[in-house]
Amino acid sequence: MYDFHYYNPVRIYFGKDQVNQLKEAVAPYGPRILLVYGGGSIKRTGLYDRVLSQLREAGKTVFELPGVMPNPRTEKVYEGIELCRRENIDFLLAVGGGSVIDCCKAIAVGAKTDRDFWQTFFINGEPAADAIPLGTILTIPATGSEMDMSAVITNWATSEKNNYDSPLIYPRFSILDPTLTFTLPKNQMANGIVDTMSHIFELYFSPPDEDNVTDYLAEGLLRALIRAARAAMADPTDYDARADLMWTSSVALCGMLNNGKKTDWASHCIEHPISALFDVAHGAGLAVVHPNYLEYVRSCAPAKFARFAQRVWEVDPAGKSQDELAVEGIRRVKAFFRELGAPATLAELGVGEADIDRIADLTDLSCWSYKPLTREDVVNILRMAL
Amino acid sequence: MYDFHYYNPVRIYFGKDQVNQLKEAVAPYGPRILLVYGGGSIKRTGLYDRVLSQLREAGKTVFELPGVMPNPRTEKVYEGIELCRRENIDFLLAVGGGSVIDCCKAIAVGAKTDRDFWQTFFINGEPAADAIPLGTILTIPATGSEMDMSAVITNWATSEKNNYDSPLIYPRFSILDPTLTFTLPKNQMANGIVDTMSHIFELYFSPPDEDNVTDYLAEGLLRALIRAARAAMADPTDYDARADLMWTSSVALCGMLNNGKKTDWASHCIEHPISALFDVAHGAGLAVVHPNYLEYVRSCAPAKFARFAQRVWEVDPAGKSQDELAVEGIRRVKAFFRELGAPATLAELGVGEADIDRIADLTDLSCWSYKPLTREDVVNILRMAL
Repeated sequence: MYDFHYYNPVRIYFGKDQVNQLKEAVAPYGPRILLVYGGGSIKRTGLYDRVLSQLREAGKTVFELPGVMPNPRTEKVYEGIELCRRENIDFLLAVGGGSVIDCCKAIAVGAKTDRDFWQTFFINGEPAADAIPLGTILTIPATGSEMDMSAVITNWATSEKNNYDSPLIYPRFSILDPTLTFTLPKNQMANGIVDTMSHIFELYFSPPDEDNVTDYLAEGLLRALIRAARAAMADPTDYDARADLMWTSSVALCGMLNNGKKTDWASHCIEHPISALFDVAHGAGLAVVHPNYLEYVRSCAPAKFARFAQRVWEVDPAGKSQDELAVEGIRRVKAFFRELGAPATLAELGVGEADIDRIADLTDLSCWSYKPLTREDVVNILRMAL
Repeated sequence: MYDFHYYNPVRIYFGKDQVNQLKEAVAPYGPRILLVYGGGSIKRTGLYDRVLSQLREAGKTVFELPGVMPNPRTEKVYEGIELCRRENIDFLLAVGGGSVIDCCKAIAVGAKTDRDFWQTFFINGEPAADAIPLGTILTIPATGSEMDMSAVITNWATSEKNNYDSPLIYPRFSILDPTLTFTLPKNQMANGIVDTMSHIFELYFSPPDEDNVTDYLAEGLLRALIRAARAAMADPTDYDARADLMWTSSVALCGMLNNGKKTDWASHCIEHPISALFDVAHGAGLAVVHPNYLEYVRSCAPAKFARFAQRVWEVDPAGKSQDELAVEGIRRVKAFFRELGAPATLAELGVGEADIDRIADLTDLSCWSYKPLTREDVVNILRMAL
């Protein structure tokens, strides 16, 4: 293992009706709360009312920022920053999926500086000095943002989808109630599962590849994810499967699977401009990019890919060469994504050969592990995905 | 999965020479530091000098409490509490294994109350209102105390070995340098490996047993532990194996493997009076008790024990009944402990049939998961271990 530092102070409330812990969870913070949410599905499901009732019981004054969309944009962040300053907000509460949480995180640091949040943090990557504390109530398991210190924001004007990390944007708490995910449409479920699996791949398929604790944990998590995904797709109200999916997405990015690993993120770097240019769901983009990326770098770590086939997919090694095992492991990933109903080609995302250059131009080439990617590599991978 | 709350704010510095992070790690705390350690091996290895040099560079005034022994005792805790009060200590730094850390934790809460620490916390289990902050530098991977909120202290006068939990005694940081364990004697290594495995068993062998993320993580961790243990026993300076052993012992008790599980602790409850009465190493006691306990409760969860054999020990299920698989899994545990050179019988600990009643009298019967243990059950398990 490489040396590492690990720190994750997020307080997790997990289980049915844990929303009832909200009153206690927000108690230590100031009275003026900004509630951030998306397109309004939380009103239809009754979650909005339950949240407001808890906040009122806690004696809080509630302000609202609705309308955060998937691939959250700079405009919404500026709107939130403005609101925080005007209303002197003490605490941000994100109710939704990764987009809502990431928007909240960007507001949290942006509201505490006089400088432009996009340039300062998402372009320059400067360390934030302060942030408004935030908490989350998760409704879509996928991005892991509820338990990490990252935010991804899209600048529509420049077609940039950038990431920012700071320990100041760890949620103070996250409430995870698997029953809140029972009503998710199947395509959102599939995207979330692909996103979670892709996160684990970014950490697992990276040096060191000799035996290490972190890879064993990743293999366990992948097996749990595959089982739960199939069970939840078959019966969307299977509580245990939903619970496993929700907790897997959080554990995947809580830092435990980074420990001692180089980590990769190349597939995410290639996918980000696809989302930014074509506004496709992040999980759908990853379903197309990641298997092709794995295929492309497979020969750099043949033993690891063979191990993946055996340990995660239980491929019988009898009579198979290392290469055959490696190929079979990736074939299983593709088949699994297909089984979920996720897209497999750029064409299904509405992206054609003519778009490849623009995507490659916008791909951040600083992410890599097995192979330093060139622009040409990105073009090759995207061609494989047509 | 059952509902759960998870929170673990320990900051981990992992890797070679991470002791050099100490100056930065203690910076946020007050100037008066109490250094707590054991029998003096840290002076022989040079660690003591490195620690003092870092603390001096950080501008701290250092006080010392040496001589904490295995199965740390109330007397040492009282001595530490007295010292903290007299010298107005701001921060406790434990340098050693689980005994030193646990002693530190008991001092941390004891020094902040006017009442008797043993009666208040370790007998009554009252929640602590305050604690002196503490950090650790780990030298023996085993108890997981470096990343949990528990302390175990022995009262020699009453032959009680009791546990206390409080979020206030989470270490603020723990420094884990695997090279510090290169010089550990083989029997201490073996005890640490058994202790770590036993912790994972206490969490894994408990409801729920239907598929859940936490069990998959536990299986991954057990596999990593078995591999690393064999490699480190063969070559004590195998850095990767030592790193895996060290990190596995921390992850085992950081809370991740408790999430959504009932958890057991019966083997620990039976072992504690053995340590308290006969002053045997905790890991040695567990090596004797735990396999027999598993054998005793096996029939309560046959499918789980069969799964354990296949997933952890890779036992081929072909032609084997569920019961045969379960038996084989436990046989592998016993063989593994023997391979490490750990004791297998009470006789090897100097404990005879005549001692069984005293041990059973002192066993806390409130711990159980598959089976509510009676005093008679404890006697039966101990007889199996003769």
